[in-house]
Amino acid sequence: MRTLVFSRIKKQLAEKPRVILPQSLGSLFFHYYHYHNLTNREKKSSHYILGPDLPDVWRQPHNSVHPPRLTSKVEVNHELIPTIIDGKSIAEEIRSEVAEEVCQMRDTKMKVPGLAVILVGQRRDSQSYVRFKTKACQEVGIRSLMAELPEDSTEDDVVNAVSSFNEDPSVHGILVQLPLPQHMDEEKILSTISLEKDVDGFHPLNVGNLALRGREPLFIPCAAKACLELLLRSGVELMGKHVAVIGRSRVVGLPTSLLLQRHHATVSTVHAFTRNPEDITREADIVVSAAGVANLVRGSWLKRGSVVIDVGTNPVEDPDNEHGYRLTGDVCFEEALQVASAISPVPGGVGPVTVAMLLCNTLDSAKRAYRLSC
Amino acid sequence: MRTLVFSRIKKQLAEKPRVILPQSLGSLFFHYYHYHNLTNREKKSSHYILGPDLPDVWRQPHNSVHPPRLTSKVEVNHELIPTIIDGKSIAEEIRSEVAEEVCQMRDTKMKVPGLAVILVGQRRDSQSYVRFKTKACQEVGIRSLMAELPEDSTEDDVVNAVSSFNEDPSVHGILVQLPLPQHMDEEKILSTISLEKDVDGFHPLNVGNLALRGREPLFIPCAAKACLELLLRSGVELMGKHVAVIGRSRVVGLPTSLLLQRHHATVSTVHAFTRNPEDITREADIVVSAAGVANLVRGSWLKRGSVVIDVGTNPVEDPDNEHGYRLTGDVCFEEALQVASAISPVPGGVGPVTVAMLLCNTLDSAKRAYRLSC
Repeated sequence: MRTLVFSRIKKQLAEKPRVILPQSLGSLFFHYYHYHNLTNREKKSSHYILGPDLPDVWRQPHNSVHPPRLTSKVEVNHELIPTIIDGKSIAEEIRSEVAEEVCQMRDTKMKVPGLAVILVGQRRDSQSYVRFKTKACQEVGIRSLMAELPEDSTEDDVVNAVSSFNEDPSVHGILVQLPLPQHMDEEKILSTISLEKDVDGFHPLNVGNLALRGREPLFIPCAAKACLELLLRSGVELMGKHVAVIGRSRVVGLPTSLLLQRHHATVSTVHAFTRNPEDITREADIVVSAAGVANLVRGSWLKRGSVVIDVGTNPVEDPDNEHGYRLTGDVCFEEALQVASAISPVPGGVGPVTVAMLLCNTLDSAKRAYRLSC
Repeated sequence: MRTLVFSRIKKQLAEKPRVILPQSLGSLFFHYYHYHNLTNREKKSSHYILGPDLPDVWRQPHNSVHPPRLTSKVEVNHELIPTIIDGKSIAEEIRSEVAEEVCQMRDTKMKVPGLAVILVGQRRDSQSYVRFKTKACQEVGIRSLMAELPEDSTEDDVVNAVSSFNEDPSVHGILVQLPLPQHMDEEKILSTISLEKDVDGFHPLNVGNLALRGREPLFIPCAAKACLELLLRSGVELMGKHVAVIGRSRVVGLPTSLLLQRHHATVSTVHAFTRNPEDITREADIVVSAAGVANLVRGSWLKRGSVVIDVGTNPVEDPDNEHGYRLTGDVCFEEALQVASAISPVPGGVGPVTVAMLLCNTLDSAKRAYRLSC
């Protein structure tokens, strides 16, 4: 038995070259030189304990444009009749619940909830997302406000727009449509949104209160809430279930993992640095995929009878489509149908429910502001 | 293929009895009555989306008092020479680094860091933990202050003690020794600690900033930081590794999971509701156990060559010991030695490094207060 005594091994290590590979996937666990060859300054930097801040770069599957053909690897389903989790009808159900409450609020308080959206620049996808959201607001009686700023605005211009909505008591939710132009600091701008109007739920205090059992965040990110609504409204039991959450963004993966744990699921978080994503995913009873990579999750990644929530909305070229592209999920839908017991499709799954959750968050915020019970 | 249309199935469900089992571990996923038999009020309560707030009650292993004998199930290790990760010497190394910096601070700024501890009541274990901490402070030159309050103090008395330390510029860290007497609201008292002096790192803003990549918490909980120090200083590579974190408390399990993810490990969080903890743990390259259950993790739970960090400090009866008990970890140490490539022992593993991390957090806080670079 060998006890680690650092003074003894330091000498042996002194001569080794300092090699820090960003993703050294060798089989050895022990790289003594890693710690010992760091300078004192490096050891004391926040990256030492917090880890390196690396982007999640997924390798594209070979055939990500067209859905892959079924291969013999996929266990073909002769008995299961998979349920297609119908996001459109669930969203409709939620929207009608919201509309009813907005109506009550107008009748009793002479007020309606208000959602402000800030759009910078002329990205067509951003414009169409914003149109979706404002249309959804109108349909349920939520007032929507827009601030459209030119591409070459300064950070201060955007911060000023946020501040004026912060101060407006008729606004209960503020959304800054992402991505912002490259010359702007997203983090800085988002952090100026008042905690009470952060309907996206990205504020670290909201994230902390989501992570800590027994505490309640003011807002939960809409896409994470949508995943849970799809599962809960489809009667999927979560307690004790093993869930693989693929992706760990602050928009979907992270809050979904935290929320599933609040429901006492056992969560494995799979990300771009995971060595064997297919093996871990295949062990899961429920798979939530939010990697943003078309056709990443093959049928062979799934356990027979698993429930699949596909959060991916990836544009893939499609010459047959009038726009030249169509949206597809992270999951090979046709393959998954052969093994899963239930799956949410793309489009028509998580997407519409996410927009409905934005309406819910705005309504909840207005109820808090007008001191109506939530 | 069957599409979920709620209006159609509602009628069929109306006659089903409402049965909500706290841990119904059946094989069926779909319990349609769960969602549909909830009242509107229940659906709108925070527990619906946030999940039920349940305590983690682990089943005690049959033989938790005495370490179990080796059974034939454990794969016997004929080749591996396991490394015992020596927490004592790592803690010593860290303490000497802290002492050096405190010395520099005294020389250049004529100031030293200050840690205030609030102890309520006369619990012998709490008294001994507090003694440990104050002794460790003295050894590295950190000034320690104590407020001892009687068992029958009011919540206001404790809050007043916290407030006076909040205002004292010579205090850089405040610890309220837990558990508090039952008539006190721990959450309320802890939340009065100034964010800048929250050396335990339990504030939700610190937890949120730990969870969100790209952001930096002011403090990371000491035990989580200790696990990472043990792994990093032992040269264990984390990126891409599969880690099973057993337990999900805000003190250890949760922050350790979040911190490991910042290092790009793939984390599975195992807890008392996990159905097959041994199967998930056996897949892991690294196991961090913080369940607080003596001998929970058997040798058969571990993959050959895995690295084991045992955070458990469980008192078990021991007539041979002068106090009538001794401390033991969550892991069957002798069994683990047969399969693991490295393991931290109890005592002498995580414990001393956790105390050293408290000194580091206090030092960092003082450096921030005196505007010295961290």
